[in-house]
Amino acid sequence: MSTDNYVIDHRNKVKRVPKRGFYDKETVYKILDDGCVCHLSFVMDGQPFVIPTLYGRHENKLYFHGAASSRLIKNLEQGVEVCLAVTHIDGLVLARSAFHHSMNYRSVVVFGKAKLVADSGKNEALKVISDHIIPDRWEEVRQPTGKELKATAVLELTIDQASAKIREGGPVDDEPDYILDIWAGVIPMKHLFQAPIVDEKMTKELHIPNSVKNLLDSQERA
Amino acid sequence: MSTDNYVIDHRNKVKRVPKRGFYDKETVYKILDDGCVCHLSFVMDGQPFVIPTLYGRHENKLYFHGAASSRLIKNLEQGVEVCLAVTHIDGLVLARSAFHHSMNYRSVVVFGKAKLVADSGKNEALKVISDHIIPDRWEEVRQPTGKELKATAVLELTIDQASAKIREGGPVDDEPDYILDIWAGVIPMKHLFQAPIVDEKMTKELHIPNSVKNLLDSQERA
Repeated sequence: MSTDNYVIDHRNKVKRVPKRGFYDKETVYKILDDGCVCHLSFVMDGQPFVIPTLYGRHENKLYFHGAASSRLIKNLEQGVEVCLAVTHIDGLVLARSAFHHSMNYRSVVVFGKAKLVADSGKNEALKVISDHIIPDRWEEVRQPTGKELKATAVLELTIDQASAKIREGGPVDDEPDYILDIWAGVIPMKHLFQAPIVDEKMTKELHIPNSVKNLLDSQERA
Repeated sequence: MSTDNYVIDHRNKVKRVPKRGFYDKETVYKILDDGCVCHLSFVMDGQPFVIPTLYGRHENKLYFHGAASSRLIKNLEQGVEVCLAVTHIDGLVLARSAFHHSMNYRSVVVFGKAKLVADSGKNEALKVISDHIIPDRWEEVRQPTGKELKATAVLELTIDQASAKIREGGPVDDEPDYILDIWAGVIPMKHLFQAPIVDEKMTKELHIPNSVKNLLDSQERA
């Protein structure tokens, strides 16, 4: 197996509709990079928890941040196993039968252990998260102070295993159903940025910064 | 405490920024009803798993479906504790400092145990999921056969505890930062339906059905 694929076992194997499963890093990274919020799950006293949280990716590592005092951080900094998912909903798939209705989506499930980033690495890790969400914003803003860095905990997760699952295209109906007089097709869905709203507390009129302009331009081109 | 609120304890208490936390059913239901995919987490042999899945809500119950043979179903039908989250990303919040950057979002975390829906209740439960995603579509399509119902497992989760968390509005910066020449504001985000794409295998030209028309109209009005 190429080093560009994750090892497949019972944890990450796509069991339902195996042809929709992918295990290569290129596919996994592309889906991770298209999102900015993941759902991170962990176990505490046998109870599962799942929490939405921002992330950034650098190579085979994901970064998360939170208040140093938060439950998420307190639990994960102990190096416990986590599972996280990133999901993009691309459309509703309307078939001729109720049974064959579906969704178009791109999702990734990641397994690994998180560990706390040392104080010396926090600034760089936070920049990874910021760059992931809105490239070049980091350079435009007031940098973190020592006190702010201290109040922020940053976690690093090396992606141990992962799999992607993708469904695309139109409905797939049972052969006899194609003659039915029932409309079938796809309603595409897109998560889109809207026109920026300037903070009413701005004391001067400033141009929209490059980071925002580029973000909106890249959406136009997509 | 009113019966319209969930009991608050360590599981569902919003610890970070408590003023963003809500425990009333009205708020929780509204956020659940605005989505159609949740992230469902459960524990198997001590390992957390999180899986994106469709859902529907009826009163204080959520319904999920899957192939009767799937891992999700096999695990959850045993009546294990689950935690699920539904998250809507409403915008990026750009502050003057890196530290105060944020997101606008509406999220719900739900706790409870899932149980298998008996064969006699499956059809009605599947209709709840269908109506949740696209109202009135169920009546337009070819109904499930006995064989299809048999191949589908449906789970019912009574919402035992839940909490909602909402962040809205502009950035909140530290007082001394307001004079800085840094653009601040919000980039709103919306998950939008696009123009429907007719299945190329349609044998006749049929009008867009009411379910699709109403879904798009309700988005226009929102």
